[in-house]
Formats: sequence, structure tokens, C-alpha cells
Amino acid sequence: MAPPKYLTGDPLAIKDFIDRFDVFLFDCDGVLWSGDHLFDGVVETLELLRTKGKKTIFVTNNSSKSRPQYLEKFTKLGIPSNTDEIFGSSYSSAIYISRILKLQPPKNKVFVIGEAGIEKELASEGVPFIGGTDPALRRDITPEDWAGIADSSLLDPEVGIVLTGLDFHINYLKLAHAYQYLRRGAIFLATNTDATFPANHSFFPGAGSISSFPLANMTGKKPLSLGKPSQAMMDAIEGKFQLNRERTCMVGDRLDTDIRFGIEGRLGGTLAVQTGVNKKEDWEAEGAAAVPAFYVDSLSDLRAGSELN
Amino acid sequence: MAPPKYLTGDPLAIKDFIDRFDVFLFDCDGVLWSGDHLFDGVVETLELLRTKGKKTIFVTNNSSKSRPQYLEKFTKLGIPSNTDEIFGSSYSSAIYISRILKLQPPKNKVFVIGEAGIEKELASEGVPFIGGTDPALRRDITPEDWAGIADSSLLDPEVGIVLTGLDFHINYLKLAHAYQYLRRGAIFLATNTDATFPANHSFFPGAGSISSFPLANMTGKKPLSLGKPSQAMMDAIEGKFQLNRERTCMVGDRLDTDIRFGIEGRLGGTLAVQTGVNKKEDWEAEGAAAVPAFYVDSLSDLRAGSELN
Repeated sequence: MAPPKYLTGDPLAIKDFIDRFDVFLFDCDGVLWSGDHLFDGVVETLELLRTKGKKTIFVTNNSSKSRPQYLEKFTKLGIPSNTDEIFGSSYSSAIYISRILKLQPPKNKVFVIGEAGIEKELASEGVPFIGGTDPALRRDITPEDWAGIADSSLLDPEVGIVLTGLDFHINYLKLAHAYQYLRRGAIFLATNTDATFPANHSFFPGAGSISSFPLANMTGKKPLSLGKPSQAMMDAIEGKFQLNRERTCMVGDRLDTDIRFGIEGRLGGTLAVQTGVNKKEDWEAEGAAAVPAFYVDSLSDLRAGSELN
Repeated sequence: MAPPKYLTGDPLAIKDFIDRFDVFLFDCDGVLWSGDHLFDGVVETLELLRTKGKKTIFVTNNSSKSRPQYLEKFTKLGIPSNTDEIFGSSYSSAIYISRILKLQPPKNKVFVIGEAGIEKELASEGVPFIGGTDPALRRDITPEDWAGIADSSLLDPEVGIVLTGLDFHINYLKLAHAYQYLRRGAIFLATNTDATFPANHSFFPGAGSISSFPLANMTGKKPLSLGKPSQAMMDAIEGKFQLNRERTCMVGDRLDTDIRFGIEGRLGGTLAVQTGVNKKEDWEAEGAAAVPAFYVDSLSDLRAGSELN
């Protein structure tokens, strides 16, 4: 395999790179922004690609927002977009549950560990759910809970799926509920299994670390992830956008999610940016999670190709 | 290796078993009781052993209680005991920090994820700590927290150790703090790494699943565990009680903690009881975590040996 090609400061190589693709899939956190900080030149870079007739799709593992909520963030940061360009792991999960699993009553409810984004996407697909942002579960566990969870009297017999995502209100009570549902045979899904995510120029606990990983440790079972690098998400994207994988490039900052996602999806290319989790030394290291085909310092470095139009 | 010997209903074998040992180390949850339910015949069995001059020591991974708090539980359930017989993972952790690590100011504070039991044992050894049951951390994460954790301004520069245990008030804010301390080089310790624990005739999320495992997933580093099966705990027990390992037997319900603890500690014997997590089919399975030397249905089956005195 050829070593990754470095594009920063090389207008000819950048033009050649852009010409090879019709569709660019972008990770968001660590690529376009970090937390609420938009990286310089991102808007102009996206504008450049669109001017050249490229399709831009935003593929995010962040499950805390629905597509409309994500669009709000784009708009607030000044990035022109629309909900049809946005593909989040909570949307991916809702589609998988409603169109692939198609559970029937009376065992078709989802117990959610996560924020409003997951709930909104489930609701948009007509999937019944409990948990999530329900204030009734945002409290300490009580003696009544211990007894009622253990003997099932406090459990909803209609729950057939546990779906875990990023939950800033994670607590013992929610984990105890989810664990019991899984012990009783519920299907185990995760919006994504990211260990951490970048925010405020640092890193914070990710969905995998606070919800799916703990439950996997308790049950000895791994969830099916509907986020990158799971190919369930790639299949959903392909189904929606009818993309030609050969002419599609995945752009991301994480080797173990973004770059692996593109490689395992047999896309025409992968581009690593060094404004997020992983850097050059990571893919050059022994046993790297994945190696990109191209890399830049930051996404806006691609603008250098525009002068050769 | 000889197959495990089944003692239930075999008075001769039981008498022979008891005669081989001077000291019995007992796990508690799943052996003596489940939650607040004392198993039948436990008091009489312990009495029988003590009458025969055996030393009984209670070795528990439950970090939520200090030794005096544990004694309260023994007393409430009607089991005669004293704090000197009780050896918990929070005590084991406090001893390790104060007598082995011996960190010096200004970098010697412990950030605790856990309940009052850990705090009491740390205090009894004179170890400074923050976190734990502090109400200031029992709340949702705020925008100020994101910023102040990321840039360290809300972190205590004197923290040199993160100690994780069972915390019924686990939340995102605590995990975010612990993760940042670990990223900044704090030593990573766990009172224990149990995936689950038995309560109310069922199972609930254990210390490993809710605190140490998530942080290990975020950091890529494993904690040093001061609970079973870590031999750091066995060394501490041996140091305190001056036991002859050859004449000591570990009694427990879990293969991956209790039985493994006894085997790796080269004790004279291990006894599995089937009133907790693991059963006969577990140690007979391919790739069992550990295989006991002896087993009974329940601890009180040992009383059948008394008639042969």
C-alpha cells in the first residue's frame, strides 16, 4: 500500500485529489470545529467544493443532536447547510430500528440512554421509546428501585431494544435499568462507540465509554453500533444518497472511526485532518487503527487547490 | 489437576476439608448474603469453624463501606464479628496509597470516584482526597465545567492519584474530572474491577463497569486494582494477619475474582459456593476464568461435618 500523501501546500496534488471525487463525507467534531469553535477557512473550503459541483455530506457520530438540531449548529457557526446533508448516528439508529429490525408490539419499545437528539429521531420514525431525557430517571437509585428492577416490577415489559448513546445525565439508575433489560434479552444497539470526543480544545468522555462499554462489560455482549466505523451506517448513507463509492472520499480526524469507516466501506479515498484526535504519528505508529490515503494539517488547506481552476 | 471435589452431603469429605486449614478467607456478597438477605445457616457455619479454632477473615471487594460500616452490616444481620476480621477493597486501597505509594505534597491528593467507605478508609490512613461524596460534584455538567476542566482551571493541581470504586452517584461530571486528571498523569487505581455484583437475588452494575472500565476505555490505560483478584490485596492480608498460605482457604462465589484470587495467591485451597454469580457449569465450561479445588451448593453445607467431631 502506498504511504499517505501529504497535500498541505501542494496545489497540484490538491487539485488532483479534489478531481477524483464527486462526494465528500465529512466528520464534524475535530474536522469543521471543536466544541463551539469553528476552524478558520472551513466555510470557504466547503464553498469551494460545492462550487466545483461536489456533494458534501456531514456524517457525525454525535448522537446528542437530531438532524434539525445539528442544522441549528451549522447555521449558528455560519456554515450553509440543510438537514438532507446531515447524517447523524441517532438518525442512523432510528432508521435501523424502524426499517431493518421492524419489531412488532408488544415487544417493540426502545429503552434509551442518551439525549434529546436520539428521541427526536426515533419519534420521526415512529419508534416508541422510554428513558432518554425522562426526568423520572434523572435521580439517585432508591431501595424501591433495587427491589423493583431486580424482580422486574419496575421494568416495562414492552422493551425489546436498549439503545445507548452519549448521555450527559448518565447515572447508576439508568445503567441498572439498561443492564436488566439486556439480561432479559433486549437487543443491544449503540448509536456509536467513541471512547472520547474533542471539545474545548481538549477531550471528554464519549458515548462508548459512558454507556455502551459499561453495559458490554456487565453483560459480556457487544452492541451493534450504528455509527462510524460500523458499515451499517455506510449502507444507510449509500441507500439514501445513491453514491458511487469509488468517487466518494471520507474526511475525518479519527483513525479508528472515520478513516476505518472509509476504508472498510471501500470508498475511493480517505483524507485525515490533524485538527482533532489523531495526528501523523498515530498512523505512522506500529499497529495503527487505520492509515489514510491522504492527509492535510487542516481542512482549509484544500483551498490552495482553487487557484488552479 | 484434579477435578473440583463436591462436598455437599459428604460429612467425611467436609471434615477432611476443614481439617486442612487454619484460616478461611470469605467473600461476603453471594456467599454470606445477597443484598440484605442473609443465607440460612451462615451464622451457625461460621460459629462451627470458630469453635474448631479456625480464623475467619472477611475479604470483600465492596468498596462502598468502610470496615466499621461493614461491621454494622454484620451486626445487623446477626453475624458476630469485629473490624479486625474485615478486609475491604477500600481499606486495601488506603493502605496501598499511604504505605506503598507514599506520595509527597504538593502532588499527593486522591480524586475519588466512590462512596463514603473509601473516604473513611483514606481518612483513617491520613490520605488527603477530593471528590467522593462531595455534593459539589453531584450535579449536571455546565458550560463553565467544560471550559474549566479542559483548561485545568477547575482542576486541583495537587491531585496525583485517581481512585475509582463503586459509586451509586456516578455522573458525567465526575468521569470528566477523573479523565482529565488521568490525562495529566495521575496514577490510576481501582478499589476493584467487578463487572457486576449480586443484590436482591439479581445483579447490578459493579465498580469495574461504572468507573474503572469507562476510564480505562477513555485513556487506554488499565488501573492497578487493589481488590480481588489483585495480589496487592493478598499481600496486604498476609502482612496484616501473618497467615500461612498453605493452611489458608479462599471461599467465594466468583471464579474471576474469588477463586482466581486464591489460586494466584497459592493458597492451600479454594472453595466455590453456588449461591452467587457462578455455578458448576461455569467452571466446567471451556476457558473458565478459574477452577476451584472444592465446591458446595451453599456455605451452610459445611455444617454436615460437625457431627463427626
